[in-house]
Amino acid sequence: MTDPFWQLPLPQPSRAHYDRALARQQQLTKPPGSLGQLEALACHLCAQQHRDCPAVDRVHVAVFAADHGIAADGVSAFPQEVTAQMVANFAAGGAAISVLARQLGASLEVVNLGVAHPLPDDRGVTDEWIAAGTGNLMKEPAMTAEQLEQALEAGDRSAARASEAGAELFIGGDMGIGNTTSASALASLLLGARVEELVGPGTGLDEVGVARKARRIRAALQRHGSDTDPFNALASLGGFEIAALAGAMIGAAHRGIPVLVDGFIVTAAALAATHLSPNLMAWLHFSHQSREPGHRYLLGAMGATPVLDLDMRLGEGSGAAVAVPVLRSACALHNEMATFTEAGVSDG
Amino acid sequence: MTDPFWQLPLPQPSRAHYDRALARQQQLTKPPGSLGQLEALACHLCAQQHRDCPAVDRVHVAVFAADHGIAADGVSAFPQEVTAQMVANFAAGGAAISVLARQLGASLEVVNLGVAHPLPDDRGVTDEWIAAGTGNLMKEPAMTAEQLEQALEAGDRSAARASEAGAELFIGGDMGIGNTTSASALASLLLGARVEELVGPGTGLDEVGVARKARRIRAALQRHGSDTDPFNALASLGGFEIAALAGAMIGAAHRGIPVLVDGFIVTAAALAATHLSPNLMAWLHFSHQSREPGHRYLLGAMGATPVLDLDMRLGEGSGAAVAVPVLRSACALHNEMATFTEAGVSDG
Repeated sequence: MTDPFWQLPLPQPSRAHYDRALARQQQLTKPPGSLGQLEALACHLCAQQHRDCPAVDRVHVAVFAADHGIAADGVSAFPQEVTAQMVANFAAGGAAISVLARQLGASLEVVNLGVAHPLPDDRGVTDEWIAAGTGNLMKEPAMTAEQLEQALEAGDRSAARASEAGAELFIGGDMGIGNTTSASALASLLLGARVEELVGPGTGLDEVGVARKARRIRAALQRHGSDTDPFNALASLGGFEIAALAGAMIGAAHRGIPVLVDGFIVTAAALAATHLSPNLMAWLHFSHQSREPGHRYLLGAMGATPVLDLDMRLGEGSGAAVAVPVLRSACALHNEMATFTEAGVSDG
Repeated sequence: MTDPFWQLPLPQPSRAHYDRALARQQQLTKPPGSLGQLEALACHLCAQQHRDCPAVDRVHVAVFAADHGIAADGVSAFPQEVTAQMVANFAAGGAAISVLARQLGASLEVVNLGVAHPLPDDRGVTDEWIAAGTGNLMKEPAMTAEQLEQALEAGDRSAARASEAGAELFIGGDMGIGNTTSASALASLLLGARVEELVGPGTGLDEVGVARKARRIRAALQRHGSDTDPFNALASLGGFEIAALAGAMIGAAHRGIPVLVDGFIVTAAALAATHLSPNLMAWLHFSHQSREPGHRYLLGAMGATPVLDLDMRLGEGSGAAVAVPVLRSACALHNEMATFTEAGVSDG
C-alpha cells in the first residue's frame, strides 16, 4: 500500500536560482533593497519556479465550496442557502472572485464538495460532492476519515488540473456559511491558542454573536479533546472545503507551483496543511492581512508577512486575486530593469 | 493681473456620485464592507470622475527630475551624476518606473527641471530646465520666487498634457540626489515637527550619515526662520522637482483628474500643495507607506491611509505605479459585480 500524497516528501525550491536572483537584484538600477518586499517575492518565485525570469501570468483560481453542520447553531450572519446561491454566482461571473479572475486572465474553477442546498444552476461547477455539509462539530466529528481523504484528494485533483493548464501560480478560495467557526476551532487546536485569539465576526456578527460563537468553539474543543494530529484535527473540526484547500496547496507544491494564500479560512487550511506536510511553507506566499481579527494571530504564528492589508474580509480567494498584480510587478521589475552596467549608472 | 493657477479654487468631487456609489456597494453580492479599502477607493473615484462606473485604465506618469545644491554637503549615498544618468535610464526604459509604466500601459513623461550634469542622452526627455540645481539651502534660498513660479507652472503643463491625453489618473514621480533632505526640511517646517521625526536614510545612509543630515536640516531651518507660508517655504527649502510635483497635483485636480501620491518626496510635495490649495486633499489617493521613516509621520499628519506597505523606498513614482492595479480591481469590482437581486442571493 502506498503512502497518501500528503505524506510524500515535497520538492525543494532551487537554492541556485534563489542565489542568482538575489545577486541580480543587487545589480539593478536602484539602491539595494529599495524595492522592499518585491525583491524577496521575485527571488522566491525564481527558486520555486526554477527559473531566472519568474512569471505569474498564468494563474489558476479554485474556489472550494461546502456547508457546515455548525451553521444550524446560528454562528453566521447569513443563512445556509447562501452557500448554494453564491456557488451559482461564482460560476455565472457575478461574484467578486469571478470579476477578479476575469481581470487577471486567470482560469476560475468552482468545486462543490458538499453544498447542502440544491444549486440554482450547476453549469460551470466541478462536482466533487461528498455529503450535504459536514456534521455539527458541537455534537459529532465534522467528517469521517474516508470523507477527509476524499476532500484532500479532491484538492489534489484541482492542483493537477492547474498543472495541466500550465499554471504558474495557484490560488485557493473558500465558500461555506459557518466556515470561520470551523477555521477558528481548527487553528485554536493546532496552535494551542486561546479561542479569543482566533474568533471574530466573520461575515458580520455583532459582539453578542461573536461571544456565542466563541462559546460554541470552546464547547466543541472540549468535546473533541486535544489531539493535535492534523489529520484527526481536520476530521473533527474542519470543513470539506478547508480540507480540500489543504490538499490543493500540498498538491500544487508537489507539482512545483507556488501558492498565493488568501485570508483567514485559507490561512487556517494552510496551517493544517503545513502540519500535514512540514516543508510546504517554502511554497506559500501570503497575500493579505484580512480584517478578521484571528487572521493577524494566525499569520504571526506562521511567521508569515502578507503582501496587502486592505481591511478585506470576503474570502472566495478575493484577497489573493487582488495581490496577484503585485507579484506580476515584482516579476517584471526583476526581469526587465537595466543593471548599473547596462544603463551606465554609477553604483553607490 | 490674474491670480496664479495654484490660488484658484479647485472643483469639487461630486457628492451625488459618491452617494450613489456607496448605495451600490451595499447591494453587491458580498457582506457589506467586506471589500475594505477597495470600496472607499471606488466611491471616491466615482465622485472625482463624476461617473457611476469609475476607471483608471489611462494613467499618466510624470517623473520630475532636478538637482539639489545641498548634495554637495554629502547628504546622499549616491553622487550627483546619478540624477542625470537615471533620467537617461527612465527615458531609455531600464528604470523601475519605466518597467512599471510599460506594464500598466501608462504614458511616461520624464521632465528635466534642473539636472546639473549633462544628460548622457536627452531623447524622450521633456525640457523644462530652470537652472543647474537649486541653491544650497545651508547657505541661501533654494530658489528665487521666479524660479519657483517656473517650476509650479512646469508641473501644471504636465497635468495639462495628461488631461489632453485623456488620463483618468495622474502619478507624479521624483528623481534628484539629495531630495530627501529638502523634503524633510520642508515637511518639518510646514508641520512644525521635530527634524528627527522626518529624517531618514534616503537611498541608504548609515546612522552617522543620518545624524549629519539631521544637523544640516536643523541648521538650514534656523537659517531660513519659521515662515510657514507654503510659497516661501518651497522657495527656501524645496527642490525644482518638488515644486513641479506640487504644481502638477494642483493642475491635475483643476482638470478633474485624481492623483495617486507616491512615497516620501511626493507626499512632502503634496503637503506643500495642500497648504497652497487647501481643497486638494479631496483629489489625492495615497499609494504606499514607504520604508523612509519620516513617511509614516507625514502620512499620519495628513490623515492619509496608504494602499500598500511593501517596504519600498525608491521614489520615481514606483510605489504609486505598483498600487494602480489595486485601484483597477476596485473599479472592476464596483462596475462588474452582480447585486443580490441580480444574482438571486439572500441578503444577510
